[in-house]
Amino acid sequence: MPSAQGDPAAPPPRRRPGGRTGRIRAQVLDAVRAELGERGYDGLTLDAVAARAGVHRATVYRRWRDVGGLLADVFEAAGDDDWQPQDTGSLQGDLAALNHESQAALTARPPIVAALIAASFRSEEAACGVRRLWEDRYARCEVIVSRAVRRGELPPHTDARQLLIAATAPLYHQLVLLRTPPDPGLPDHAARTAVLAASAGAFVRSPPVGDGA
Amino acid sequence: MPSAQGDPAAPPPRRRPGGRTGRIRAQVLDAVRAELGERGYDGLTLDAVAARAGVHRATVYRRWRDVGGLLADVFEAAGDDDWQPQDTGSLQGDLAALNHESQAALTARPPIVAALIAASFRSEEAACGVRRLWEDRYARCEVIVSRAVRRGELPPHTDARQLLIAATAPLYHQLVLLRTPPDPGLPDHAARTAVLAASAGAFVRSPPVGDGA
Repeated sequence: MPSAQGDPAAPPPRRRPGGRTGRIRAQVLDAVRAELGERGYDGLTLDAVAARAGVHRATVYRRWRDVGGLLADVFEAAGDDDWQPQDTGSLQGDLAALNHESQAALTARPPIVAALIAASFRSEEAACGVRRLWEDRYARCEVIVSRAVRRGELPPHTDARQLLIAATAPLYHQLVLLRTPPDPGLPDHAARTAVLAASAGAFVRSPPVGDGA
Repeated sequence: MPSAQGDPAAPPPRRRPGGRTGRIRAQVLDAVRAELGERGYDGLTLDAVAARAGVHRATVYRRWRDVGGLLADVFEAAGDDDWQPQDTGSLQGDLAALNHESQAALTARPPIVAALIAASFRSEEAACGVRRLWEDRYARCEVIVSRAVRRGELPPHTDARQLLIAATAPLYHQLVLLRTPPDPGLPDHAARTAVLAASAGAFVRSPPVGDGA
């Protein structure tokens, strides 16, 4: 989730039905995020979520069935927000802003985003949910590349996804997999590295530039 | 673990004591890797490991205590091999070879490396073990950068770690976090991207190039 900051910890989804059903869902998913942030996957139970949300246990069991169901719905809700990447006026600025948001989300206390990523290694539903959410986030971020193409910063045949992955992967690699302490310079540095590589033609799709003739 | 191919699935460590103790350890760790590859973390038990290894349960319980102890020792053993990155004669070739090894390891069946990474989100001992192993692997890979500096492919003040992370992160990001299907072109592409960025000065440490004056 590039800039998953607002995502899993997001306010109740907008396009969902309001009223009592929507309110209960919002309370329950807030409780799931809070429990996960405080206790991690191993401490996540339907009973604790129901108690924290102030919702009948039976409702939680009936509607979400198990921890996997709760996690799937947290990811589903995270994709329902209207998050868009920042428009800073430059490719490097946009990518750096994205990385700063992600770094903030990954290092936030309680560690809700980190716990959701960890949960995706525990539960098949969470794994599906996180996969869809990443896909949605990277798709939304493609506008960063199309804006840069319009400004003439990038050639038209730039592979947006490859560029976005190159710009964002080092941050996740270090914080989630290598588990090194956050490097405050990395969000900007990784953005700059991707821009330098892009300027050198790293993400130009074949047919190279002029596809005619 | 860049090119963790040989690592966790490695032959018994070289610098360990031989004899009966060493043999038992090798059998037990082989069994841990096999159980993990076949059943994942949830299926990993000391009893199953003891049975598979043909070693007394009491020995396994006494020496490794619990699943965390077994996993910690698997990572410890993985760091005891004499793995070195390939020397292909060029920076891009070396980085591509590293990525190909990692891609092969991450997509191998049974998925031992993937299961070890997943286990690092479950067990504190495994998290420590994987952190040390990554550190060791990246340290060994720094020779790739120093060779390239000697050949004149890179300026002397290149930050080896940053370059190595940039070259290897996209592959882990896609396979481990985004969980997209393996892209056969990615190992070479990510290597080429890092080389282009490096040629554009992305990894030059300050003082920029000439540190005199």
